[in-house]
Amino acid sequence: MVAAGMAREAGYRLFALTIDYGQRHRIELQAARRVAAMLGTERHIVLPLDLTQFGGSALTDAAIAVPQDGIEPGIPITYVPARNTVFLSLALGWAEAVGARDIVVGVNAVDYSGYPDCRPEFIAAFETMANFATKAGVGGDRFQIHAPIISMTKADIARKAVALGLDAGLTWSCYSPTAEGRPCRLCDTCRLRAQGYAEAGLDDPALA
Amino acid sequence: MVAAGMAREAGYRLFALTIDYGQRHRIELQAARRVAAMLGTERHIVLPLDLTQFGGSALTDAAIAVPQDGIEPGIPITYVPARNTVFLSLALGWAEAVGARDIVVGVNAVDYSGYPDCRPEFIAAFETMANFATKAGVGGDRFQIHAPIISMTKADIARKAVALGLDAGLTWSCYSPTAEGRPCRLCDTCRLRAQGYAEAGLDDPALA
Repeated sequence: MVAAGMAREAGYRLFALTIDYGQRHRIELQAARRVAAMLGTERHIVLPLDLTQFGGSALTDAAIAVPQDGIEPGIPITYVPARNTVFLSLALGWAEAVGARDIVVGVNAVDYSGYPDCRPEFIAAFETMANFATKAGVGGDRFQIHAPIISMTKADIARKAVALGLDAGLTWSCYSPTAEGRPCRLCDTCRLRAQGYAEAGLDDPALA
Repeated sequence: MVAAGMAREAGYRLFALTIDYGQRHRIELQAARRVAAMLGTERHIVLPLDLTQFGGSALTDAAIAVPQDGIEPGIPITYVPARNTVFLSLALGWAEAVGARDIVVGVNAVDYSGYPDCRPEFIAAFETMANFATKAGVGGDRFQIHAPIISMTKADIARKAVALGLDAGLTWSCYSPTAEGRPCRLCDTCRLRAQGYAEAGLDDPALA
């Protein structure tokens, strides 16, 4: 939400892409629809793509549990193989089809360095590849991949949402929602979000 | 088929991935199933992914006709934005999930240089990106993208199928099948296939 809000503030028209990839926290798809509507995106595609056929992650294989005992070092079992590569590839295809050349992705490398596809090196390598891969890129009409929150802390991001007048109560982070559709407060992403809000001295509107 | 056959000959176990992306020549999905069975792949996933939501190509937008008047210079309207990037990204995800590190793709750059995502520069850039993107790549257990027929002529490929004992009659190339499910013989890919077989001095078993 914050990355898209920053792009809107910079004057970009917004086309939003959400992937319904079989994630166990599919409640985030409802949040994506709320956020896209709030931001006034021109189009919002929610694209089904069944990554559970590949498995290999706690987010796409029901037999693998989401860790709830605290953050461990290393790449977590919630890593979905090549997920952000797949997401950005789809965004690249849609962007080229509609004539857009700027792709914005809300990955964040600072608080949580466990995911390889949330790092600046990955974003740079994807951008290079994208300009070899496409008709537009080869023609010199280059794509740019923007990751405006990649180096911000979670606290910075919470503050930025407030500064932009965006309601973070519309967003969803938790990997392991309760039966009542509430954040579990125990998974890594709940813990990191709580730490960020605490550091920012703000209340998380999603927990109100 | 020939790229996969070459991988099998080199001793690799085969996992086959086909994308049902809304291509107008979806008859090729039947051919993919026949070829996967013939090659004895351990698994074959046919993954639905509706790229018609993006459009921008004669292959994914029913309102754009497939050219049948002969091959024109430049990138053709049958180019699907970022298609091979999306395909390879999905293959990368599945490969990492099952522990494979070698990805084989049957792109060909020689006879038909119109598609940017069929060139060696693209394959090399994708491989570099893949090793920044993934847990395995970051850990030094590198992915390799193999494009064994990328520099072969269509005639070479036709001959190689024969040399490997593979029945090219199981394959499908045409973008614009007739109502009877036969190749149109007029689209670019039909013309290139026919030229390749003529140059090789072979009859195309798919036209028998």
